[in-house]
Amino acid sequence: MHALIAIDSFKNSMTSLTANRTVATALAKHHVTASQVAIADGGEGTVAAFLANQPGGQAVTVATVDLAQRPIQATYGYFAEQHLAVIEVAAASGIQFLTAGLNPANTNTYGTGLLIKAAIEHGATKVILGLGGSGTVDGGAGILRALGVGFFDKNDQPLMMVGADLARVARVDTSKVLPKLSRVTFISAADVTNPLTGKLGATRVFGPQKGLDSAQLATYDAAMANYMQVVTGSVEKHPADGAAGGIGFALRYFLHAQVRSGFELIAQLSHLKAQIQQADLVISGEGQVDDQSFMGKVPIQISHLAQAAGKNCYLLVGNQKGAAATFAKQGVTAVLPIVDRVMTLEEALQRGPENLARTADRLARLITNPVKLN
Amino acid sequence: MHALIAIDSFKNSMTSLTANRTVATALAKHHVTASQVAIADGGEGTVAAFLANQPGGQAVTVATVDLAQRPIQATYGYFAEQHLAVIEVAAASGIQFLTAGLNPANTNTYGTGLLIKAAIEHGATKVILGLGGSGTVDGGAGILRALGVGFFDKNDQPLMMVGADLARVARVDTSKVLPKLSRVTFISAADVTNPLTGKLGATRVFGPQKGLDSAQLATYDAAMANYMQVVTGSVEKHPADGAAGGIGFALRYFLHAQVRSGFELIAQLSHLKAQIQQADLVISGEGQVDDQSFMGKVPIQISHLAQAAGKNCYLLVGNQKGAAATFAKQGVTAVLPIVDRVMTLEEALQRGPENLARTADRLARLITNPVKLN
Repeated sequence: MHALIAIDSFKNSMTSLTANRTVATALAKHHVTASQVAIADGGEGTVAAFLANQPGGQAVTVATVDLAQRPIQATYGYFAEQHLAVIEVAAASGIQFLTAGLNPANTNTYGTGLLIKAAIEHGATKVILGLGGSGTVDGGAGILRALGVGFFDKNDQPLMMVGADLARVARVDTSKVLPKLSRVTFISAADVTNPLTGKLGATRVFGPQKGLDSAQLATYDAAMANYMQVVTGSVEKHPADGAAGGIGFALRYFLHAQVRSGFELIAQLSHLKAQIQQADLVISGEGQVDDQSFMGKVPIQISHLAQAAGKNCYLLVGNQKGAAATFAKQGVTAVLPIVDRVMTLEEALQRGPENLARTADRLARLITNPVKLN
Repeated sequence: MHALIAIDSFKNSMTSLTANRTVATALAKHHVTASQVAIADGGEGTVAAFLANQPGGQAVTVATVDLAQRPIQATYGYFAEQHLAVIEVAAASGIQFLTAGLNPANTNTYGTGLLIKAAIEHGATKVILGLGGSGTVDGGAGILRALGVGFFDKNDQPLMMVGADLARVARVDTSKVLPKLSRVTFISAADVTNPLTGKLGATRVFGPQKGLDSAQLATYDAAMANYMQVVTGSVEKHPADGAAGGIGFALRYFLHAQVRSGFELIAQLSHLKAQIQQADLVISGEGQVDDQSFMGKVPIQISHLAQAAGKNCYLLVGNQKGAAATFAKQGVTAVLPIVDRVMTLEEALQRGPENLARTADRLARLITNPVKLN
């Protein structure tokens, strides 16, 4: 019996990689072999997931700067055969770098731009940029600057394009961009559809969690509109422009990036459909499944693939919200919560791997011992 | 697909009958039919279990008295064809009657004796007496008095044989016992092996939970020894004499009762082995299963029967203590805890039936959708 395991992360408890490995180990004790596909949403763990799913990749660590221009080492994934680099915005511009005194006004994505530049100089002609977990709201200007775009104020003084410079920018110079850039295809992995500006824009929706005061939001949003006006000649709303503090915009307008969901990319690059076809059963899951928010949920996208392939699909979850019958219609054979005794939420999160291991063992016993009819 | 369901009670949450019915309803939605065997341990619910398991029985309600001689109505089960009465000590002498001011010294099992007498007069030639849940420590003297045995003090004054009279009894008169008694076979359903007196006796082990002060225990135990001496001519230790405050002794010595475990009786009378043979799978369980206390546990006795018959056996439990592998060696295919999300113990107990229903539904989906191998 062979299983395809593709479990999303259990937030605050387990990464996708850990969850997959835990279940594979439990199944192996019952002679159920398994292929694993790590799930990523473009945030932290995306590089690790790609490297785990696809042979031939390597982790490349280079010097860059964080969102406050402090020197750091950061890692991207490189697949030499495909000339493909997988880069996380979180690696250099992640919210984890927001220490005291830092906020969107004095930070930018320059460090991520340096990573992209390094990957291109390494030979990448295809860059997948995971947009999750960013700590900046700079409209992607820092990235562009690292790739050679010049930004100037009304006195033609160069700007370093931290957030506060968005209001000051008066001219853009694209004459000195990295020559190789024109030969590079960009894909951004984002699950966010917000535009760059306005009520649903990057500033108002994501600014507060990155340290913008609510009193600053209107001014900051107007500055972002100024930036878009100067760069493009107009202020328009495009879906996903607002991803990662506006990186979505820079990728779309300057780098002609396709926007894809993290799961779609993973599914394509890992040949998920074919792997499901070759397996006898599919196991997915995540921290919480909810019958009210099926849309876009990785385990449900996987159960749909399983259903289409005529395979049983089991979800191992931290918290099941919603009736089994509703899940069954989505191709889910059974939902097995990994909380299997009286425990607090804290215990459940802390003991995620052991709870998951017990539940996977239970599932293995159930599927390898079918009922024999009289 | 046909299941045999025999789930023990979930203490403080669900009776065996409720648990069985809940699971059968959940299975039926997945076209799994079920036979149900209610489990009883001789305590409260024993009569209901026998009536549920065996056709042809009726509940008979008669007037009697409780352990403080207060008039009550109590019910026993009667199977006319077999002339069989099933009586719970708890029905008239149960610990639930122990109100303020009552304790073993001023209570007795006379009311249970009246129930036995009523059943014999109704035609019973076989009496199964469930010994669980008693609130008395009278050595069964109250029962014996109701059946015609006389007890007298050293001045030859008749005693009503509450606990305090155990020290006073000096003579026993069996000349006026109910004539029909000699034609009646008694079986006591008890899971307790304690003797009547001594360190492991009825007084010291079970007295405190029935209201005896620890300071009274030695005196009370000596009084019990006096009673045994007067009745039998010696003080001896026999297994199960100490059951139900010493009813075990009275049943053995005067009524020549066989001691059987509640489960054995149920298994025999419900033809459990044959029912398991006819089923495709077996479902048992209880509030807690523990790999340290397998001996005598109903779900494990059932899993042994399932194993011998080559059937899968699933345990639905409130709390699984111990590793799945240990249970597997006892013939358990899988243990499925019914706590399936973060909840407190109180919630788990309160919501027992709905938790069980969800878990049974999960099990039904798992067993009716076996993995199809490629």
